[in-house]
Amino acid sequence: MSADGERWVLLNASPDIGAQLRASPALWPRHGLRDSPIEAVVLMDSQIDHVAGLLSLREGSRLQLYCTPESHEDLTGSLPLLKALESYSGVRWHPMPLEPGGGAWHEVAGLRLQAVPVPGKAPPYSPRRQAEARSDNAAVMIEDSASGRRLFYAPGLARVGEAERRCLDGCDTVLVDGTFWSEDEMVVAGLGKKHAADMGHLPQCDGPHGPGMLRALDACAARRKVLIHINNSNPILDEDGPERAELVRRGIEVAFDGMELEI
Amino acid sequence: MSADGERWVLLNASPDIGAQLRASPALWPRHGLRDSPIEAVVLMDSQIDHVAGLLSLREGSRLQLYCTPESHEDLTGSLPLLKALESYSGVRWHPMPLEPGGGAWHEVAGLRLQAVPVPGKAPPYSPRRQAEARSDNAAVMIEDSASGRRLFYAPGLARVGEAERRCLDGCDTVLVDGTFWSEDEMVVAGLGKKHAADMGHLPQCDGPHGPGMLRALDACAARRKVLIHINNSNPILDEDGPERAELVRRGIEVAFDGMELEI
Repeated sequence: MSADGERWVLLNASPDIGAQLRASPALWPRHGLRDSPIEAVVLMDSQIDHVAGLLSLREGSRLQLYCTPESHEDLTGSLPLLKALESYSGVRWHPMPLEPGGGAWHEVAGLRLQAVPVPGKAPPYSPRRQAEARSDNAAVMIEDSASGRRLFYAPGLARVGEAERRCLDGCDTVLVDGTFWSEDEMVVAGLGKKHAADMGHLPQCDGPHGPGMLRALDACAARRKVLIHINNSNPILDEDGPERAELVRRGIEVAFDGMELEI
Repeated sequence: MSADGERWVLLNASPDIGAQLRASPALWPRHGLRDSPIEAVVLMDSQIDHVAGLLSLREGSRLQLYCTPESHEDLTGSLPLLKALESYSGVRWHPMPLEPGGGAWHEVAGLRLQAVPVPGKAPPYSPRRQAEARSDNAAVMIEDSASGRRLFYAPGLARVGEAERRCLDGCDTVLVDGTFWSEDEMVVAGLGKKHAADMGHLPQCDGPHGPGMLRALDACAARRKVLIHINNSNPILDEDGPERAELVRRGIEVAFDGMELEI
């Protein structure tokens, strides 16, 4: 994301970050071969799919990294990618401690960022995985300093409670967890034994744990509602399927590689 | 690589392994969504560019991994990707201890593999980086059990001595370190302060440390000679440049994404 089209901030660092950079001319070097318009990376959590790409960002200048103390602990402990990066470009960590209702605002490249704690699960490799204490996953509220418009970004979201509802309502655009259509999708497809709730995701449909993401989005006043972080088992990926038609009826979009949004 | 077109063995796991799998129908699942025809991964070393892709191979069955005890130490120590993978598909390690002249032969999916110690450098993040003791980087000799034909694969090769010369000569096809054209290429291009030798690579041209890779390949009887692992600063990437023309004159090929070889 970018406020000025010059300086860019990445939300999570996906394993395929190399392909993403090659496909995005805005992120290409401008002032020499090892230059980069990427000003910072903001992590929601320390899930492998959100952090493995950090290893590919090791040949430019010092990486400016925003993440929670919990994610930082994983990335210097069980999966110490940040320690390994010290032998390359190095990392400067900007802590984003999670506070109920949202923590401090960070000014990054003309944008304002606020980490918001959301219900979720620590990664399987993390010692915090089994600790069912308070949530330490982040969603992020992003405000364009110029227009004041806001976007809510939450690729992992296990429940929409009162606090999450306020976040959704306070934004022009919401990008939320679209991992699963139904609670037992992986089990029914024979892909695993885990339910959505076990993995820290709220499915789109209502289920045994209560109303699904669709109801939460129906109740939300945002101008654009976009599902992101979609598992390859999710039937909404079939553009001609009934599930996709239902999303269209409700005015909910499905993110795709290379999607561009203006808030 | 594959002996039968059914079971495949990967040499190193590049960060862009996801894109590689998507681009290679032979590596797609056949018997269900999480199936994979990948039987094993063989690592030459623990360089980030050779191991980061392991994190993307965590959703199938147990990973069969062949690597040296030194690489295994890095990948369970400083950069413990293998430990993290234990929370997903898990890893079975097949040790390939390095012995002068080549260690034991391993039978993998109809192929025979032998690790050969070659001069090189441990990765920057490794505690072994500064230890200038014996080499612990591997090249691998691959033999098709049916035809007996051999391929030598050495993406990192800091020197071609007597032992390496024997490996090159004993093969029908050689794939060797093509990182740099000249010893000071990175410095001249303003990309860094390190010379080829500092990074454990033998440049194609002769240099202050002696004859380059071109002379070694000229003296080698292999039918096909291919440069791999080419840095983006290397002028041989320019298909119309004089350096590429020189390779053509010498009968040396330059590898490219998606290249297929039959030995």
